[in-house]
Amino acid sequence: MNVHGKPTRTIWLQDPALVQIIDQRALPHGWVIEDLRTVEEVAVAIRDMHVRGAGLIGATAGFGMYLAAREAVSAPDPAAFLHGAGNRLKATRPTAVNLAWAVDRQERAMSSASSPAERVEVALRTARAIADEDAEACRRIGEHGVALIEEASRAKGGAPVHVLTHCNAGWLAFVDFGSATAPIYAAHDRGIPVHVWVDETRPRSQGAKLTAWELGQHGVPHTIIADNAGGHLMQHGMVDLVIVGTDRTTRTGDVANKIGTYLKALAARDNGIPFYVALPSSTFDWKMRDGVKEIPIEERGSEEVKYADGLFEGRHIEVLVAPAASPAANYGFDVTPARLVTGLITERGICGASEHGILALYPEHA
Amino acid sequence: MNVHGKPTRTIWLQDPALVQIIDQRALPHGWVIEDLRTVEEVAVAIRDMHVRGAGLIGATAGFGMYLAAREAVSAPDPAAFLHGAGNRLKATRPTAVNLAWAVDRQERAMSSASSPAERVEVALRTARAIADEDAEACRRIGEHGVALIEEASRAKGGAPVHVLTHCNAGWLAFVDFGSATAPIYAAHDRGIPVHVWVDETRPRSQGAKLTAWELGQHGVPHTIIADNAGGHLMQHGMVDLVIVGTDRTTRTGDVANKIGTYLKALAARDNGIPFYVALPSSTFDWKMRDGVKEIPIEERGSEEVKYADGLFEGRHIEVLVAPAASPAANYGFDVTPARLVTGLITERGICGASEHGILALYPEHA
Repeated sequence: MNVHGKPTRTIWLQDPALVQIIDQRALPHGWVIEDLRTVEEVAVAIRDMHVRGAGLIGATAGFGMYLAAREAVSAPDPAAFLHGAGNRLKATRPTAVNLAWAVDRQERAMSSASSPAERVEVALRTARAIADEDAEACRRIGEHGVALIEEASRAKGGAPVHVLTHCNAGWLAFVDFGSATAPIYAAHDRGIPVHVWVDETRPRSQGAKLTAWELGQHGVPHTIIADNAGGHLMQHGMVDLVIVGTDRTTRTGDVANKIGTYLKALAARDNGIPFYVALPSSTFDWKMRDGVKEIPIEERGSEEVKYADGLFEGRHIEVLVAPAASPAANYGFDVTPARLVTGLITERGICGASEHGILALYPEHA
Repeated sequence: MNVHGKPTRTIWLQDPALVQIIDQRALPHGWVIEDLRTVEEVAVAIRDMHVRGAGLIGATAGFGMYLAAREAVSAPDPAAFLHGAGNRLKATRPTAVNLAWAVDRQERAMSSASSPAERVEVALRTARAIADEDAEACRRIGEHGVALIEEASRAKGGAPVHVLTHCNAGWLAFVDFGSATAPIYAAHDRGIPVHVWVDETRPRSQGAKLTAWELGQHGVPHTIIADNAGGHLMQHGMVDLVIVGTDRTTRTGDVANKIGTYLKALAARDNGIPFYVALPSSTFDWKMRDGVKEIPIEERGSEEVKYADGLFEGRHIEVLVAPAASPAANYGFDVTPARLVTGLITERGICGASEHGILALYPEHA
């Protein structure tokens, strides 16, 4: 997608010894490119959420193992170094499925190399493949999903299609295009008038900070709303379509996503509005059947709820909103039952949110 | 309710020329008493939300018309002055039905006065009556509503009853006790273990700032949550009862309340959790039948969504959360259809959210 008018990915190799990322903690008020030269720097960037989002975490871990392969060349025990590097990366965000997946893939690929130099070469090829495949999966999600927006546009006689989204399942969460945003960018780029209602997504405000920023950079019309507003908009015919991302989806179509997603799905159902979830198939958890019962929900620190952060006199600071003495609870995700999901937009096409629908697209998991 | 350990109301007459209120904008970090000496000061206090909440707005408008009656004594055209004052007050918060109701009641009362001095006397009596009746209505709401918490407590074998509430329909929104909070305070004061999930209620965060503060002052256990969290809590059996307030309720039981209430009603319904609305009968709009179609919804400034405010290094400041260039929309209220409301807790008792149920308690409006 475009940043400052220039096509940009969220991670890239600047020169053979230098991986660069966008330090997303500075967004939307600052634009900071961060240099990563060692696997330890990569681990810190993932752990401290300089990068976040399923796809981007996987791609960053892939490049992290490439940097580890370079470092291993001069390590006393290269195999031990690589093994340690993989474990170090996996421990940074233990619930991120793509992280372990990318590390394992790198380890498998490198095991076939017959020399340290070849190992570096293989690791680079694999890191690039992980990133390229992520971007390509998102591009395809856009290709499939744009049909929904086109159809809504036709039904409205060409009037702007209003899409509501929650959190950031955008370009910034992947290598390019995003998942929930990919159909939106595709529509915009084809000249289909589209406008996005962006849930601010408290407590971390990824919608207000990240989704609004990236839509703005690419020139997509959008409006930020409080998380409370979506139901009202839907009651009054101001939302044509909901598209969100997911952190984990069961084989039966239950969808774990940022806390609050379930409330929007209920409102969409109550108002007859289609509710779609966009995901690359790496996000499926093929072992799970009951999302509400089985998916573990991360609890985060209460300070995220009691504080808000933003720009004040040129500085990025935190303010205390609530009484200092009041406790707060902070659940990171909720689960939207499949019965509330109109369909899943995947890189292979759109399917119903049911085991039957999903397996029709992914028969290899039957 | 208690503030700093001392029984306190939210508005009072300090001397015949001086009405005092709590400037609620300073809460929860500051405690500021504000002087009101003219109807214009009252209008600004209502418009700029130094006071807010259905009951307190009504009581403040009542005292505002009393101050107007005092000012009218020396006005060139007293009748025109009073008429202008009433219109000025009514225009400050168009969604607040208690505002127009209090102004109309004052105008009717004053019309019987035979001299400017008597008009001042009548206006004072009426202002006091409006405030006292508000406090008494809330006390009775507590008496009726506490039975629901008692019953839930019995059903749980005495374990704490978890009540979720949205926004501030508390002591601070009325003259005393609050509406949604009245049953909670009554339960707490009777020794029934009760714990409150407090929605932070973006964008103005009245839950995090006001409800948490007043519950804390009175010693009621509570936990602040993001507005996004309630559905997850309900899915996991962590909410026994929802009690919210309302700014306007139709004769058919449709409920306008702070934006986001409708989403919690949907989640309560989806999880079989009772959803109650507490209100003094002054909040009924007896003329309206279809809340979603008829109740006007206030749109407020976008800066409330783009900014968050709180305490930083001892100062109350605002931080910009979202990109400066992104637009935001800010709808103040939404309407929860009667079909999602388990019952209404009024000063006369609990009734179903239907014309039939409401008129059984209020036959004079049949």
